Amino acid sequence: MTTISDIAKHLNISVSTVSKGLNNASDISDETRQLVLDTAIAMGYMPKRKISLANNNNDRKVCIIINNTDYENKEEFSYDLIQGFKQTAFMKHWQVDILPIKLTAQSTNQYDQLLLANRYSGGFIIGSSMHSDYSTQIAKTRFPTVLHENHVPANPKVGYVGTDCSEGLRLAIEYLYQNGHRKIAFLNGAKNSTVSYERTHAFETIMQEFSLKIYPALFAYGYYVADCAKYHVPKFIDNGATAIICASDLIASGAIAEVTKRGLRVPEDISIIGFDDLPFCTNLKPPLTTIRQDRQNLGRSAMFLLDCLINNIPINQLLLHAQLIIRESTCPCKDT
Amino acid sequence: MTTISDIAKHLNISVSTVSKGLNNASDISDETRQLVLDTAIAMGYMPKRKISLANNNNDRKVCIIINNTDYENKEEFSYDLIQGFKQTAFMKHWQVDILPIKLTAQSTNQYDQLLLANRYSGGFIIGSSMHSDYSTQIAKTRFPTVLHENHVPANPKVGYVGTDCSEGLRLAIEYLYQNGHRKIAFLNGAKNSTVSYERTHAFETIMQEFSLKIYPALFAYGYYVADCAKYHVPKFIDNGATAIICASDLIASGAIAEVTKRGLRVPEDISIIGFDDLPFCTNLKPPLTTIRQDRQNLGRSAMFLLDCLINNIPINQLLLHAQLIIRESTCPCKDT
Repeated sequence: MTTISDIAKHLNISVSTVSKGLNNASDISDETRQLVLDTAIAMGYMPKRKISLANNNNDRKVCIIINNTDYENKEEFSYDLIQGFKQTAFMKHWQVDILPIKLTAQSTNQYDQLLLANRYSGGFIIGSSMHSDYSTQIAKTRFPTVLHENHVPANPKVGYVGTDCSEGLRLAIEYLYQNGHRKIAFLNGAKNSTVSYERTHAFETIMQEFSLKIYPALFAYGYYVADCAKYHVPKFIDNGATAIICASDLIASGAIAEVTKRGLRVPEDISIIGFDDLPFCTNLKPPLTTIRQDRQNLGRSAMFLLDCLINNIPINQLLLHAQLIIRESTCPCKDT
Repeated sequence: MTTISDIAKHLNISVSTVSKGLNNASDISDETRQLVLDTAIAMGYMPKRKISLANNNNDRKVCIIINNTDYENKEEFSYDLIQGFKQTAFMKHWQVDILPIKLTAQSTNQYDQLLLANRYSGGFIIGSSMHSDYSTQIAKTRFPTVLHENHVPANPKVGYVGTDCSEGLRLAIEYLYQNGHRKIAFLNGAKNSTVSYERTHAFETIMQEFSLKIYPALFAYGYYVADCAKYHVPKFIDNGATAIICASDLIASGAIAEVTKRGLRVPEDISIIGFDDLPFCTNLKPPLTTIRQDRQNLGRSAMFLLDCLINNIPINQLLLHAQLIIRESTCPCKDT
């Protein structure tokens, strides 16, 4: 176990200077602070948490790291995650700081240093895209860390919170199957994300369970924006899809627009199912059938998981149940 | 929402008789009690939990259902699960009853009735084998229920707790790979269990990640007893395995015996890895390298998950990190 004295000895400076460097004191130079932080990380230093029955909040701080554009746009999914996270944090006497960081800045940003310098006991990283440098850092971090919609190679300090997308896709496919649909298309999210990979695998497995044929022309990777629908939905229509499952509500809204533009009707000609159940789903025309993710409970679970990791309960993965919310964008298949 | 009056009206008996039936009172006949319970379940009745700040323990009861032979044999895995479960239960003011039930009795036992009649708010079912009638019941139960080493089709009231066996197998295969092993055999558990299926899938995926060939002659389903090793280990040896991963420590102990019986040495000729890290591993000759499951934290997590389900936080799955414990049953491959 590296101590402050070890760092002081190694750098041949005083213990109080090391302490100042670690505690972000203003009366040392930026160079010295940086040197202390670099050395502390390299030597595997971890601050001891003071255990106080008074739950002194100054010593119980965690952070949420979020893509700055998601934060500034008040993106709904993240907003609810943060609210849920804060609820559990409040109950467990943790103070939460939110740190909006540019995706491009992740490569220069040193995760462990950030936590050490600011006395965070752990971090929650929100967002489906993560810079590969950051993934490498998280795979090695010594700080308790929770990820949403991302995985890194095995690190006992890192846990993952998400929705059981396999359960969600099973509910959607089962519902479509019972309504006579046999040619079901799947418009997935970005190809390079872990979640998309898992969803592809789940889609294939479940289609097989229902003895439904997977047509290559009825499957595509897109991107998590409405606009991506126009590149794939026409092909789905031309190849006889009677239903389209989309990897997000935003993509589904684009799919509805695209089907309508081609003179077809949703749901009479083509049923559309989204993913997430964001608030705008009820305002779409027609209101969207979608696989619901319970965002607030995801956030709550994330803080619970982080608290477990901080207390050495090695949870790796916590998945919530998915739910199928049936609205008016789906109906029985007219071909059957 | 079905009420006690609805049941009374339906059966044309008094509300107080229904109440007696639901509360296991002694002054009504067994037939009437059974009739009340059957009708309550059929009508979807769910008892309301009284919320009291005093945490009245009489109203906060959950049960652990365990195979009676596991319980009577003081099987170590289950014992630690139960201890962990009770720790969290104590913290959260839940009273726990342990119900050892014969596997064969599961088909006649009505799960929902058992919980309703005994005023349990939820149940934790331990054990990798479950009667198919019971699986069907659990798939439909309205009572918050946590399973270990078992899955049932999507039911938002049911959650699952386990160890990330994929992570465990990755640690084992990576370690063997780094020690020069290329012909790695896998002796899995019983073919009809969910866990075995998941482990097969994980084994194949991870072997491919390391560009290792999967030889059909180096893979077998066994059973969770030491004795099963003798049916498969000779074939593994004849086909040039330099390392054998076993689905449990018990199987691994059998594998060590079988290798030794054939005049070969563990680990010099063949490395052996177990699964679970039960206490006897350190007493084997040689002491067993194994993939550790954190049994006590699994039990704690199970009660946490049950508490969440009771409070309508819909957690589906909670997996703990696996850990590779390296002892003396493994060493670098002599062929490299």
